[in-house]
Amino acid sequence: MKSDSLNDINYIEQCFNISRKGLGHVSPNPLVGAILVKDDKIIGRGYHKKFGEAHAEVNAIKKSRVDVAGSTLYCNLEPCCHTNKKTPPCVPLIIQRNIKRVVISNLDPNKEVNGKGVKQLRDAGIEVITGISEEEGKEINKFYFKYIKQKLPFVTLKIAQSLDGKISGAKNKQTWLTGKESIKFVHKLRSEYDAVLVGANTIKVDNPLLTVRKVKGRNPIRIIIDGKLSIPPKSKILNNSDPEKTWIFTTQKTNQRKIKQITNNGVRVFSIKSNADKKINLKSVLKELAKNKLTSVLVEGGQEIFLQFFNQKLFDEIIVLQSPKILGKGIQGFTSNRLKKLQLLQLDQFGEDIRLVFGRKSSN
Amino acid sequence: MKSDSLNDINYIEQCFNISRKGLGHVSPNPLVGAILVKDDKIIGRGYHKKFGEAHAEVNAIKKSRVDVAGSTLYCNLEPCCHTNKKTPPCVPLIIQRNIKRVVISNLDPNKEVNGKGVKQLRDAGIEVITGISEEEGKEINKFYFKYIKQKLPFVTLKIAQSLDGKISGAKNKQTWLTGKESIKFVHKLRSEYDAVLVGANTIKVDNPLLTVRKVKGRNPIRIIIDGKLSIPPKSKILNNSDPEKTWIFTTQKTNQRKIKQITNNGVRVFSIKSNADKKINLKSVLKELAKNKLTSVLVEGGQEIFLQFFNQKLFDEIIVLQSPKILGKGIQGFTSNRLKKLQLLQLDQFGEDIRLVFGRKSSN
Repeated sequence: MKSDSLNDINYIEQCFNISRKGLGHVSPNPLVGAILVKDDKIIGRGYHKKFGEAHAEVNAIKKSRVDVAGSTLYCNLEPCCHTNKKTPPCVPLIIQRNIKRVVISNLDPNKEVNGKGVKQLRDAGIEVITGISEEEGKEINKFYFKYIKQKLPFVTLKIAQSLDGKISGAKNKQTWLTGKESIKFVHKLRSEYDAVLVGANTIKVDNPLLTVRKVKGRNPIRIIIDGKLSIPPKSKILNNSDPEKTWIFTTQKTNQRKIKQITNNGVRVFSIKSNADKKINLKSVLKELAKNKLTSVLVEGGQEIFLQFFNQKLFDEIIVLQSPKILGKGIQGFTSNRLKKLQLLQLDQFGEDIRLVFGRKSSN
Repeated sequence: MKSDSLNDINYIEQCFNISRKGLGHVSPNPLVGAILVKDDKIIGRGYHKKFGEAHAEVNAIKKSRVDVAGSTLYCNLEPCCHTNKKTPPCVPLIIQRNIKRVVISNLDPNKEVNGKGVKQLRDAGIEVITGISEEEGKEINKFYFKYIKQKLPFVTLKIAQSLDGKISGAKNKQTWLTGKESIKFVHKLRSEYDAVLVGANTIKVDNPLLTVRKVKGRNPIRIIIDGKLSIPPKSKILNNSDPEKTWIFTTQKTNQRKIKQITNNGVRVFSIKSNADKKINLKSVLKELAKNKLTSVLVEGGQEIFLQFFNQKLFDEIIVLQSPKILGKGIQGFTSNRLKKLQLLQLDQFGEDIRLVFGRKSSN
């Protein structure tokens, strides 16, 4: 390990921290933080604040009150070198400003950059270190990596269950299981994911707003899987101030008059092919979301939608909010053993509830 | 708050820590640690090591290399003053050695002491401070407090369940749900509780030893609830090196010849009255255990026994070891909603599993 490796790790971790401030605002771009260090002092900090606006590297250079020539640039993602986008590329600016050394965590998985940015910097005589805290970097930009590499959004299934594994006391009945800390956390998730997704039955039973209210943050796109376009016209989700953020996915067989009624109101409707079982093909829904530049989707239920995503392995993570209540009777959350074992990634206490975050694991 | 309060708390916490070394060896006595402090220096430490042997206070005084006169004695439990027991009382020794000040956490709930020890010390001109970190002291001696106050052992129900709340893949089938960290933890519990308890069906299906093997420690008493004395004579639990530690509870109607066969082997058999439903009265079992000086019992299953204790509210704590596996089908652990909500006391990760410790909470 080189003598300055510990310093490099420390500054890259700081880049991670400041990059997170862009969460919810930069998609489909990645979260990027940048720090400029000269003579062991930080001379500039910046992060990518909003899609379409300046990149982290540019912001850090702008913020510096001293000449950046001879400094080291820390940046969690490889600086961009392509011109096929909204803002000018960062690599020429770094070269022009005589930055001496560039330390990054991840190469940009985007084929237009992927290693080319590093090569251009090295060709210009700049020392480039890559791969610092690489796994953490990938975790922070897990939405972006999934979206770029697989052309699909990162999918998180969220489920609230009782200690005995029930999600509701009875069919088509809303049962309030979790406490206020868990609810606040769900609102925070909504402010961070590009979209939330529910089934038509959830709209009929719970009539939710699916907005961000308990924390500060922007509302996500609201996606409803509704094969027959059957949700009541008076549903809250069809009658709000930002109807363009409500997207309904229905089958190609749905009556055009019905679709027109709803789209007149500003709501978007997507017609998607259905499977042999007449259910909407969820993989096609996800592809459509990626085409519309959504990099992340939080599936909030209900049980049928949850199990479809689960059984078809169309998820990256599952968040279980588990309450200390015992329902005894009711609707079981997990009813399938298609996937036998999950991988526990995180565990926390949220007031009286607990939060379990699982990743996928090959069945044992 | 007095100026020396922080010091007092600090030393009492140290008493808690050293008292724990006696866990599994002092029952039915409490866990007690003692520290002697003179001129801001610890001059002696001691704890109650084994039932029938010297008390913590005596051990601390013995360990001191300087004269204890004028020192402060820290002790998590009120020093004893009664003579109706194996060892001489501590209060006269404390007075005789001219100890100046005594700081304790809990008064001894034992009626023969309860405040009388403190009074005798104060009457002798010793300053006595009580109630330091009182709740923590009660938690450490939760077995003793329950046993003394209610003449019943402290009852902990232990259950291993899958993420979907199942304890087994099918009736009368053992399903291995948890990993090696959880198993080690269960063995540690066995070394700390006076007794473990299972139903006859668990013996028939799992044929367990119920001994301590994965950690160092003494074996607990093994209790089997077996109304018809139906466990196979070849069961491991009836054929081990310490048969006097296997106690079987059966109904008063069980055939005497059957009982004699088993007791000949060294195993103890208790005949207990049965309920209207012909099941053994578990409250009577617990009373009998307390009569036999058992202060704590770990109920290890199976499901029927677990639910009997749960539904009859005959428990103080429930430990849920939850695996990240999904069984889909199988036997549900909690099937009753008699108690609607538990109180989460503790949460930990054990390898791939999690441990949840619950206390009882009045139904909401």
